[in-house]
Parts: sequence; C-alpha cells; structure tokens
Amino acid sequence: MARTTGSDGERTEAAIREAALVLIARHGYEAVSMRQLAAEVGVQAAALYRYFPTKEDLLYTLMRDHMTGLLAAWQAARPETANPVARLAAYVENHIAFHIERRSSTHVSNMELRSLAPERLTHILKLRTTYEKELRSILRDGAEAGIFSVDDIGLTAMALIQMMTGVIVWYRPGERLSIDGVKRTYLAMTMRLVGAPQPAGEQSNVHAHA
Amino acid sequence: MARTTGSDGERTEAAIREAALVLIARHGYEAVSMRQLAAEVGVQAAALYRYFPTKEDLLYTLMRDHMTGLLAAWQAARPETANPVARLAAYVENHIAFHIERRSSTHVSNMELRSLAPERLTHILKLRTTYEKELRSILRDGAEAGIFSVDDIGLTAMALIQMMTGVIVWYRPGERLSIDGVKRTYLAMTMRLVGAPQPAGEQSNVHAHA
Repeated sequence: MARTTGSDGERTEAAIREAALVLIARHGYEAVSMRQLAAEVGVQAAALYRYFPTKEDLLYTLMRDHMTGLLAAWQAARPETANPVARLAAYVENHIAFHIERRSSTHVSNMELRSLAPERLTHILKLRTTYEKELRSILRDGAEAGIFSVDDIGLTAMALIQMMTGVIVWYRPGERLSIDGVKRTYLAMTMRLVGAPQPAGEQSNVHAHA
Repeated sequence: MARTTGSDGERTEAAIREAALVLIARHGYEAVSMRQLAAEVGVQAAALYRYFPTKEDLLYTLMRDHMTGLLAAWQAARPETANPVARLAAYVENHIAFHIERRSSTHVSNMELRSLAPERLTHILKLRTTYEKELRSILRDGAEAGIFSVDDIGLTAMALIQMMTGVIVWYRPGERLSIDGVKRTYLAMTMRLVGAPQPAGEQSNVHAHA
C-alpha cells in the first residue's frame, strides 16, 4: 500500500505510515514510541513531528484514512441496481477484498479505538456507523422485499462484519485458498445466513457485478 | 469472576489476575508493567513475583486458563446426543455465554498471542485447535448426514467462531437485548448459515438441552 511515487516528502510520509501500522499492530499503540518509529523509518524523530505533531495525530490519521478508504472503496464497488442480493454480494466482496490486503491497518483500526481521545473516537465511530448503515440498509431492503429472512437487522449487520473481518486473523496469501475462493465461500455463507435463495449456479452471482 | 473465598494467597492471586486482564485489555501487554499492576492491586511488586515470576508467566497463565476454562465449559455443556443440530446449538450457546461474561479475558486472549514466546504460543494454539476441532466435527457430522450444507468445514468453523466472539465488541449487559436474546439470534443465524432446517418452533430447540 506504500506510495512509491510522489515527492520525497510524500514518500517519507508513506514510509512513516507503513512502519507505524506494522509497529502498532505488533506491539500495541502505547508501547510504540515516536523515537522507535523514527529509527524504523530511518529518519530523525524531529522529522517525524513535521508530519505528525503528536503520536495520537498519527494514530488518528491512520484510523481515519482506513475508514475513509473503506467508504471510498465501497462507493466505487457499489452496484447501480436496487437488487438486495447483488448489493449484498458487492458489499461482501468489497469488505473482504479491502481488509485481506490491509492486515496491519485493520488490526490497528479494530484494536486501538481505546487509544483515541474522545472527540476523535467519536469521529471514527461516526465513519464506522456510516459504513455499517450501508449494510443495514441492504439487509432491510432485502427483508422488506421478502428476499432475506433477518430477525434483527442491526445484530445481523454486526455479525456479518465481524465474520468477514475475521478473515485477516487466519488468512495468509498463498494458503490453500485464493482470495477469490475465500470471497466465494464467505459470500455463500452470507447468503445462507440472511436466508437468500441459493441458486444452483450461485457462483455466477459472485462475478455478475465484478 | 474473581474468587471471593479461599486463603489470603488465593484472594491475592485472583486480584492480580483480574487487575492484569483489565490493564492488559486497556493498554496492551507491552505497555503494562509489573510495577503498575502491583500498584493497581495494592501490593508490593515483590509480592507479585511470588505468584508470577515474570510478566510473561502471568500472561501465559491468563491465556492458558481462558482456554482450559472454555474447554471445560464445553465439556460440561456438550450434550449426550449425536444429533448435529443439538450439538451445534449447544456449542453456540456455550461459546456466547462463556465469552460474553469474559470481555477482558477474551480481548487479551485474542490480542496477545503476539506477545507469547514460541513454545507457549504453540501450547495455546494447540488448545485453540482442540476447541475448534469440536466445532469442525459437529459440522462434518451434520454435512455427512445431509442435515447441514457446508462448503468448507474449516473455513465455516472459523467464520462462526469469529462471528460469535465478536459479540463482546458491541454487547454490553443491560442493552436492549438480553444475553438469552443474543444467544437466540446468533443461534438462528448459525443454523441458517450451515443450511440446517429452520423449524417454525426453532426456539424450542434453543432450550431443549439447557
């Protein structure tokens, strides 16, 4: 994910972000110092503070950009159709594709809410709610159309998001399953979980909007 | 979960464990010092080392006891029947009941694998595998009997465990849903996800083995 083009300043900032994600995912935010991060990137600590005046500014930037990146990826992936099955399939595919390539960033985003100051926490939680609402609205539309069978919209949305994000815990590129294989299996599980009709040729749905 | 009976030593050890779970869940293992923990419990640091010679001994003990506790809870909850639907229902109920009451412990167990030395990590991972195998064997039996529809046993087991454990992220006692309500909704989602028949009176299944 590190940018390899751009000015020296942009490259340095990208290197700081990448190193910060890896260090925080490995040791936890509180245990990582700006000094340690500067050493990892190969710059003076003073240089770091030009980009991120405080360690919490850095954490907040990482977490905000993770969520705005996820929302932007969804805006790009979201299909024109009103069909809840196609929209849910697109949501599942986008969610898995986004997170499976961002293990450290996902880890930091899920773990370090505890380390944000209240106003910043509120802002990140608002972004998360915006993203979750997209899924809830798909589930609600499908339930109202009688296509999905969902007992509790909010709880089903949380369950699906946690199930899908959990992929980063066990998936390593190069395992027996390809990313496409993971997406297909999670899509089939999701469709069954929401009680959507399971066509025999269900895998063609997976690619219909790709 | 703190023991309130027993000798002074047992009470002190229970207080150390409880405080350690809360502090590590809040700040991360690396950021918590034995000195800080001793202050929290109200003992001298030297007293702490009588119970746990190193900080990693303490972490390992917490993580091991979390997993042996989970396995013991499952041994107690596991029904006699060979019926995969009843066994899966019991697994879901036990998993949710166990974790929903142990938020800090679950958080530490899932987050701090990164902080264990290799042999201890191996031991904890073996305990986790033992627990996951129980679910895989239920899913396999159900699939072989033609009762469940499961594409990938291992992946379905991981997905279900992550979906269920995710409850601790959003659930707070006293929310609109009771713990029983959460269990019922997750049970219904699980049964749909594995393609189990959905009887109209499915809620009677929930309590059949309770």
